[in-house]
Amino acid sequence: MSDNNTTNPNQIIPTVLNEITTVMDDINADQLVGAMDFITKSRRIFVVGAGRSGFQAKGFAMRLMHIGYTDYVFGETITPSIHEGDTLVAISGSGNTSSVVETAEKAKKLGLAIVAFTSDPDSKLAKLADRLVIVPGATKTGAGVQSIQLLSTLFDQTVHITLDVLCLMLSRRDGTSNQDALGEHVNVE
Amino acid sequence: MSDNNTTNPNQIIPTVLNEITTVMDDINADQLVGAMDFITKSRRIFVVGAGRSGFQAKGFAMRLMHIGYTDYVFGETITPSIHEGDTLVAISGSGNTSSVVETAEKAKKLGLAIVAFTSDPDSKLAKLADRLVIVPGATKTGAGVQSIQLLSTLFDQTVHITLDVLCLMLSRRDGTSNQDALGEHVNVE
Amino acid sequence: MSDNNTTNPNQIIPTVLNEITTVMDDINADQLVGAMDFITKSRRIFVVGAGRSGFQAKGFAMRLMHIGYTDYVFGETITPSIHEGDTLVAISGSGNTSSVVETAEKAKKLGLAIVAFTSDPDSKLAKLADRLVIVPGATKTGAGVQSIQLLSTLFDQTVHITLDVLCLMLSRRDGTSNQDALGEHVNVE
Amino acid sequence: MSDNNTTNPNQIIPTVLNEITTVMDDINADQLVGAMDFITKSRRIFVVGAGRSGFQAKGFAMRLMHIGYTDYVFGETITPSIHEGDTLVAISGSGNTSSVVETAEKAKKLGLAIVAFTSDPDSKLAKLADRLVIVPGATKTGAGVQSIQLLSTLFDQTVHITLDVLCLMLSRRDGTSNQDALGEHVNVE
Repeated sequence: MSDNNTTNPNQIIPTVLNEITTVMDDINADQLVGAMDFITKSRRIFVVGAGRSGFQAKGFAMRLMHIGYTDYVFGETITPSIHEGDTLVAISGSGNTSSVVETAEKAKKLGLAIVAFTSDPDSKLAKLADRLVIVPGATKTGAGVQSIQLLSTLFDQTVHITLDVLCLMLSRRDGTSNQDALGEHVNVE
Repeated sequence: MSDNNTTNPNQIIPTVLNEITTVMDDINADQLVGAMDFITKSRRIFVVGAGRSGFQAKGFAMRLMHIGYTDYVFGETITPSIHEGDTLVAISGSGNTSSVVETAEKAKKLGLAIVAFTSDPDSKLAKLADRLVIVPGATKTGAGVQSIQLLSTLFDQTVHITLDVLCLMLSRRDGTSNQDALGEHVNVE
Repeated sequence: MSDNNTTNPNQIIPTVLNEITTVMDDINADQLVGAMDFITKSRRIFVVGAGRSGFQAKGFAMRLMHIGYTDYVFGETITPSIHEGDTLVAISGSGNTSSVVETAEKAKKLGLAIVAFTSDPDSKLAKLADRLVIVPGATKTGAGVQSIQLLSTLFDQTVHITLDVLCLMLSRRDGTSNQDALGEHVNVE
Repeated sequence: MSDNNTTNPNQIIPTVLNEITTVMDDINADQLVGAMDFITKSRRIFVVGAGRSGFQAKGFAMRLMHIGYTDYVFGETITPSIHEGDTLVAISGSGNTSSVVETAEKAKKLGLAIVAFTSDPDSKLAKLADRLVIVPGATKTGAGVQSIQLLSTLFDQTVHITLDVLCLMLSRRDGTSNQDALGEHVNVE
């Protein structure tokens, strides 16, 4: 058990890995498999998240592009209008981040399928979801698995891993290889 | 003529409009028409710019999307790898901004057509261009039309207007209406 | 008078410049001078805009930094929490863009001064403003000065110029030179 | 051991967690402690990364702001010029991403301290570093710990966790509480 004031990474890292493992053990495999229903190459995928969750949302969107999906991030330059038959992937630790919830509400009215990642099954976002994946990492409101880490750090880490696992599941379903993904990766950076 | 220290907008605005008109009168119509050769719906258009020019580049990219083009901004999440047959639209007041020039050099090697907007016909960027549009607004290095405004402000303003004129030319060539453009405009913001 | 279908820049450019001049002639100098009251070095300035207006908002924020202000853009990485005594500069052509209006509403409740740039004096944003600058360029909803250009292009162009004029007014009030501004300009790009 | 083609998260997640643990076990505590030397409240911290590493860089920059640091992300609107006495935190899985390496080279010439996170101790970035943290996660060039995951996924995950651990170390060194961090977190999103 780590001292609550230590700055020694040899004490902190095992505790953090243990927190991550605890959360990931709680991921419901059926929920993650269910998310695949609406993340297909025949749909346009729109991704939304705010703050540090937003960076994980963008990392997911970038990887979707690498593995051959047509996808867009809300707030970026070339994101077009959304329409029935599109999918919204929405990420919010608390499930109540207002910009994310409002986007999901508007998207639902327009006929999009909502795939939500949140720590709270009772949140507004969760209630809008057609496919829900609960990632019970601690958030800045104190919900979820307890953590020594700051604010929503544990949620950010575990939603990152969860989205990467989903990308691997999608690429395997589609028969997309690492080499295929490398071919789509930006070649000027 | 405006006092160099006045903060009165009634004196500043006419001087600024006069600067803008002076630059726009110098735009070569043939160059702008020439740029249309490589900005077509059968090509993927990649856009690059840095700093305040970069914001005008993004405004152009967004409008291209509204009028039905497939385009991407370097540095955004879903920008894929570039290939022969694509077009790079590169914007730099000085024509020597290193990140823009390097992107143009790599793009040229990969077989992209380069459409460049710069104030300096002797710059590195100008020399890489397959289609060159000179926008002689003042830049932060002091080149171009003289201006009372700060740094590259006059270039930013006139490249903005030039790119908007180009979008109007493209939409008319393609028969795209204002209503068509509104249909692509993001509907959740 | 330009033919509504021409793609000739020699016909389009004069019409566009005429539209811009018409709008800029309608800018109320007192409003612009009034905006300076809440844009001071003793306040933190937060900037918000969506879509193409958002790019002009960012260009303004970048220039504010160059001339020595402490400012932040909503949605960027290091934007902190807002508090009483800060200023919000909000930009929306229609004055009804929901993300901009909601940010202004929350900011007002938290005690920020609101400086608004919009084409519509009756819009929600205008009504929240402590200092209001009307820029009557055409917007995508058809309000403002009539224009041959697409969607809110004329608003984007004229709010761009208006914000640049304001930056020049601020730099002259503060005694900030072009050389000072160059010293703050990013030196790695 | 997981089947290489399975899409079952119950098989994939344990393998991924095992990969992450293997990498994190290889983090050198002294390197991470050493990075703290140049990440102090008396220095301005500039952060750079590209692609998916860039999103982790931004997540780190956001958290630094929450815990009271003055920091900036290269490529964002209000990032100012850099000067001797500032610190650059540079992140690249391969350590050879050209935009990151060039920024580090320019920063070093200008007198900044370079804190680098990479998987490759022989990379260009590693050689520029004043403080080096090796995160041996697999990258898209095949270096580092072997992984079933796509491209640089394992590096992204482990540099994410490593940067979060560093933030916790910094906040504890500085006596910054979770409540302090919540106070800086954006309150309009």
